[in-house]
Amino acid sequence: MNSINIDITQAVSLTQMQAAAADKDAAVKTLDSASGAGNDFLGWTALPSRTTQALLDEINDVARSLRESCDIVVCIGIGGSYLGAKFVIDSLSDCFAAYRPAQPGAPRLLFAGQNISEDYLFELQSLLTGKRFGIIVISKSGTTTEPAIAFRILKEQLEAAEGREIAAQRIVAVTDAKRGALRTLATREGYRTFVIDDNVGGRYSVLTPVGLLPIAVAGYDINALVEGARKMETRCKTDDIAATYAEARNILYRDGKKIEILVNYTPRLHYLGEWWKQLYGESEGKDHKGIFPASVDFSTDLHSMGQMIQDGERTVFETVVSVTNTAHSLTIPTDADNLDGLNYIAGKHIDQVNKMAETGTRLAHLDGGVPNITITIDTINEDCLGQLIYFFERACGISGYMLGINPFNQPGVENYKRNMFALLEKPGYEAETEAIKKRLGK
Amino acid sequence: MNSINIDITQAVSLTQMQAAAADKDAAVKTLDSASGAGNDFLGWTALPSRTTQALLDEINDVARSLRESCDIVVCIGIGGSYLGAKFVIDSLSDCFAAYRPAQPGAPRLLFAGQNISEDYLFELQSLLTGKRFGIIVISKSGTTTEPAIAFRILKEQLEAAEGREIAAQRIVAVTDAKRGALRTLATREGYRTFVIDDNVGGRYSVLTPVGLLPIAVAGYDINALVEGARKMETRCKTDDIAATYAEARNILYRDGKKIEILVNYTPRLHYLGEWWKQLYGESEGKDHKGIFPASVDFSTDLHSMGQMIQDGERTVFETVVSVTNTAHSLTIPTDADNLDGLNYIAGKHIDQVNKMAETGTRLAHLDGGVPNITITIDTINEDCLGQLIYFFERACGISGYMLGINPFNQPGVENYKRNMFALLEKPGYEAETEAIKKRLGK
Repeated sequence: MNSINIDITQAVSLTQMQAAAADKDAAVKTLDSASGAGNDFLGWTALPSRTTQALLDEINDVARSLRESCDIVVCIGIGGSYLGAKFVIDSLSDCFAAYRPAQPGAPRLLFAGQNISEDYLFELQSLLTGKRFGIIVISKSGTTTEPAIAFRILKEQLEAAEGREIAAQRIVAVTDAKRGALRTLATREGYRTFVIDDNVGGRYSVLTPVGLLPIAVAGYDINALVEGARKMETRCKTDDIAATYAEARNILYRDGKKIEILVNYTPRLHYLGEWWKQLYGESEGKDHKGIFPASVDFSTDLHSMGQMIQDGERTVFETVVSVTNTAHSLTIPTDADNLDGLNYIAGKHIDQVNKMAETGTRLAHLDGGVPNITITIDTINEDCLGQLIYFFERACGISGYMLGINPFNQPGVENYKRNMFALLEKPGYEAETEAIKKRLGK
Repeated sequence: MNSINIDITQAVSLTQMQAAAADKDAAVKTLDSASGAGNDFLGWTALPSRTTQALLDEINDVARSLRESCDIVVCIGIGGSYLGAKFVIDSLSDCFAAYRPAQPGAPRLLFAGQNISEDYLFELQSLLTGKRFGIIVISKSGTTTEPAIAFRILKEQLEAAEGREIAAQRIVAVTDAKRGALRTLATREGYRTFVIDDNVGGRYSVLTPVGLLPIAVAGYDINALVEGARKMETRCKTDDIAATYAEARNILYRDGKKIEILVNYTPRLHYLGEWWKQLYGESEGKDHKGIFPASVDFSTDLHSMGQMIQDGERTVFETVVSVTNTAHSLTIPTDADNLDGLNYIAGKHIDQVNKMAETGTRLAHLDGGVPNITITIDTINEDCLGQLIYFFERACGISGYMLGINPFNQPGVENYKRNMFALLEKPGYEAETEAIKKRLGK
């Protein structure tokens, strides 16, 4: 029995799948033979099976020391250095964890360096004042603007509060093996470090120390997470459900379905959508092509985006991540008066109602012309999340090759940065500064 | 000096605006003369000016009593009975409020009834155990599935913990004036109540007690919020910036821009995007028409959706809500070593860097073929948010009429509910139950 399954029968026909099979097979071959564009970024493909127990033990050791020495750990990173950990941690956490009293040995894990918000950093500084805090700083170069600003400010705060020596014990850097500002600083200050390999891009990095360290600090089982990913790596060699997903979504795209909506029915999976949007959007949004990725939390967003999905332009399809089992058990009580009319579902588990909302919505949207792919996972735990991560990563590589783009670069992300550096008069951007000032009439 | 301004010059040309002016004028006339489809739902149009001080005082009185008697207030509602309050409260709140110690007289405001998650409700129940809590329950009928389940469970918990009399003092119902399950219950139990008028739809309800009560309980100034909305109501009579926005986005849509992305550069405004998506998506997604609304938090999501926006299909445009002033002040420190290379911006406010990211991104996206509308607000306070709310509401009505749909109904939202009730074998759905079981082969 597999704990992850995919159903594409409500999205594409067998005939369509057969017609696109050769195309899919070619994309799989391109990926598996490392013969396609971006093949210097394929370190993620065998990452689960190659991850050593020694590395996992080292990550757990460092995580344990941060858990023991800190009340709050701030994880500094942006994009792939933020979304993977955030997704896994949120998925596994109590929805109201922030409101519960902090426990010794279980620090709060907060994020920074994922924006340039003055208020956010001011309020974080204020929260950290007087607290025992540590920092995980994740940046290949150490010079990406958002995390670099956050790290400069929080490192200064930590050193001022605790002294340079204690601060160095509470800072862990995840960075390039040899080069870059952060590696240089880490060596000089004696920070503990983990390596970001050259051949794993940011959006594929959740199963490297980039994701694993914060996940371990949050108290979750990274051994089980990696083991789950290994299962999917192995499974796809003979039962390539990732290729099935990649093929189905490309068929839909070619058929005019321009927007894919990733759907969950449990608020814990909200950040799965955010992680998935980076993975697919950044991989496929190229050469004026690519499915536009959107995400919703149902049934919440049935009361906002539901009308548009049901009756708007017929250019959307849905991919539902359905979770079979809940973590907790709660039933609907009987009420003698029954004014709200709910006694017909009294005694049922709330999730039974949720599942009927899910089935009812799938049928309603199918009737409205919205194809539906369903990915079912047994339960939200490290094992299933590990499998799901590898599934989506592999599918993304195959899908990108089917689309005819390089799924592993992101040239378009540089454009705004160049303008920003020019506007900020960064050394080395003198010509760009002059040009952009002229353009803005300054 | 207006504290809200709109710039459409980077999205549409003067010629385009002139060509569509008659169309826009007709839509404005349809709305202002209440002669269009859905004209029985126009209670929101003069709502700010008609809201009495007596009502605001009453809301503040009830809010004060909840603030004094509760450590946690759970606001139960879904869709428009959730998103408006969530948007305003999040916008005005410290990003890390959840992690700060609770203060007497300033209860936590949490939300429920906006999903059917067994884990969410289980974890909420566990959090509330042993706490002094109260409930705001918002539902016109009292029988909408999600809030009805949450209310049945939490009411039972509250009555079990405190007795029926105390519970009745800590429950406030916002519901229909006369009819419905919740009105009946409130009368019988002696709950304090506020009225949901028949002529204001859920997504236009944030400036009614639906939004105002939770906002007041969270400690924010509802007088200033309503006064801001009044300013915009008055302003649009002579300077209709809402019509300008409505016209520009319809021009873009007719020109093949099928997706509008609402952009913010400050994480506090995240839920503005969610509120806006309901307002526009539910109003316009009809008859296989309508702009698909998406939202992003920049610069965070420049590192996820940025590539797609820059280089994907050229069917997107952006509407940026730009905030001129921050709430707090924090500058980038100088670092003697300058390993991260940030000294070129040392001494600058972080927001100055954020603004250059904003300008740089606008130019990069324009160069990439992404039209850009900018809405500038002075600062995130009650006054500006009130103005912004009315601006978006009015623009939505005009825009819907330009599109040729009824902006005030949501027929498509019923489809999944009918299926769900049939699957749950709700009394009265016997024929639908039989049909859906047959369809599913059960």
